[in-house]
Amino acid sequence: METTAAFKPTARTRLRRRPARAAYDRTTVYAILDEALICHVGFSVDRQPYVIPTIHARVDDQLYMHGAAAGRMQRALGKGIPVCVTVTLLDGLVLARSAFHHSMNYRSVVVLGRAAAVTDPAERLAALEAIVEHVVPGRWSEVRVPNGKELRATAVLRLPLREVSAKIRTGPPIDHADDHALDVWAGVLPLQTIVGTPVIDPLLGPGIGIPASVRNYRR
Amino acid sequence: METTAAFKPTARTRLRRRPARAAYDRTTVYAILDEALICHVGFSVDRQPYVIPTIHARVDDQLYMHGAAAGRMQRALGKGIPVCVTVTLLDGLVLARSAFHHSMNYRSVVVLGRAAAVTDPAERLAALEAIVEHVVPGRWSEVRVPNGKELRATAVLRLPLREVSAKIRTGPPIDHADDHALDVWAGVLPLQTIVGTPVIDPLLGPGIGIPASVRNYRR
Repeated sequence: METTAAFKPTARTRLRRRPARAAYDRTTVYAILDEALICHVGFSVDRQPYVIPTIHARVDDQLYMHGAAAGRMQRALGKGIPVCVTVTLLDGLVLARSAFHHSMNYRSVVVLGRAAAVTDPAERLAALEAIVEHVVPGRWSEVRVPNGKELRATAVLRLPLREVSAKIRTGPPIDHADDHALDVWAGVLPLQTIVGTPVIDPLLGPGIGIPASVRNYRR
Repeated sequence: METTAAFKPTARTRLRRRPARAAYDRTTVYAILDEALICHVGFSVDRQPYVIPTIHARVDDQLYMHGAAAGRMQRALGKGIPVCVTVTLLDGLVLARSAFHHSMNYRSVVVLGRAAAVTDPAERLAALEAIVEHVVPGRWSEVRVPNGKELRATAVLRLPLREVSAKIRTGPPIDHADDHALDVWAGVLPLQTIVGTPVIDPLLGPGIGIPASVRNYRR
């Protein structure tokens, strides 16, 4: 697959305001989806929208999500109702001289479509591997893989990447020219997600060292 | 207002799975809403859900959001359609001995209801102040406040905190007892959002130092 090909904007995904912040190419979209630890899934039940944070993973042009088979989201989405999945990475606080021009630097992706429950056992297992590897690369080969009971308790959803857009803001504040002479500091306060020192499970037996996947973890 | 009073769970906000992770008391809900830099707003237009990241601020039991008056979200929500606002704080990656019991430590809040466009000028200005102060405490008094044109270009939405729930996971992985003897490291990798060195606006004039709101910033 040519990863630099672009998603075709639709009336629903084309940015009408600030179109210069839009991106539709796969390289950009993939990078944002792959870096974000979680997504927010939006769907409606009885006309009430719900937005639920969950872990995702991308495999080519498929986005996978998982959850308890008994969960509200899995049951609703498995029926194929319309869904919106949004991921957001915050990169900085943009401090302008005027309150109005304060902003954030961010990268976000919005995916519209209909999810489907994954039933094929091989695809289900591959999706679960992708989800674990998405969060901690290298972890899948270190752990016990799911058994039959665990697999039955897990719902896996697939959302094809078809109607997709990214939105990105970077750079310094953009103040009105009249404000440039104000005696007000302006700039960007960068944000970063870091991992702290691993906290060992109190039940961990002796002599089990921290694996490379954890020791070298960074986002 | 007694901030420790609890929101009354409804059929839509009561956690059916893992009820021990639910919280409805105002102290917990307020703390999560106030710490999160952004929220994700869910609403439907023509039966398609949309989930949009945006900045919010809480004032007592009101949640305020703002945006361009011409934006899709502001126009849709200003009509009073059902909305879901979710904020999520990621606290750690939970690494179990089994793939199945991997998880995340997090704190999230879900607010259901109908938003309304704020029209009262004093409430609009107070909401914008709250939003700036929510992101960078102390910033409002440092900057130029919005003028009439800027206020007309800004939509402010108010969502009352009525139907609200929080969900929290903390602590170590919870592996099946049969797995405790596995030779697999288990524990939590804490996550933290930090701010880096301020990046000065290239257009900043000489002699303007970094203000206390920025110099001492931490989340």
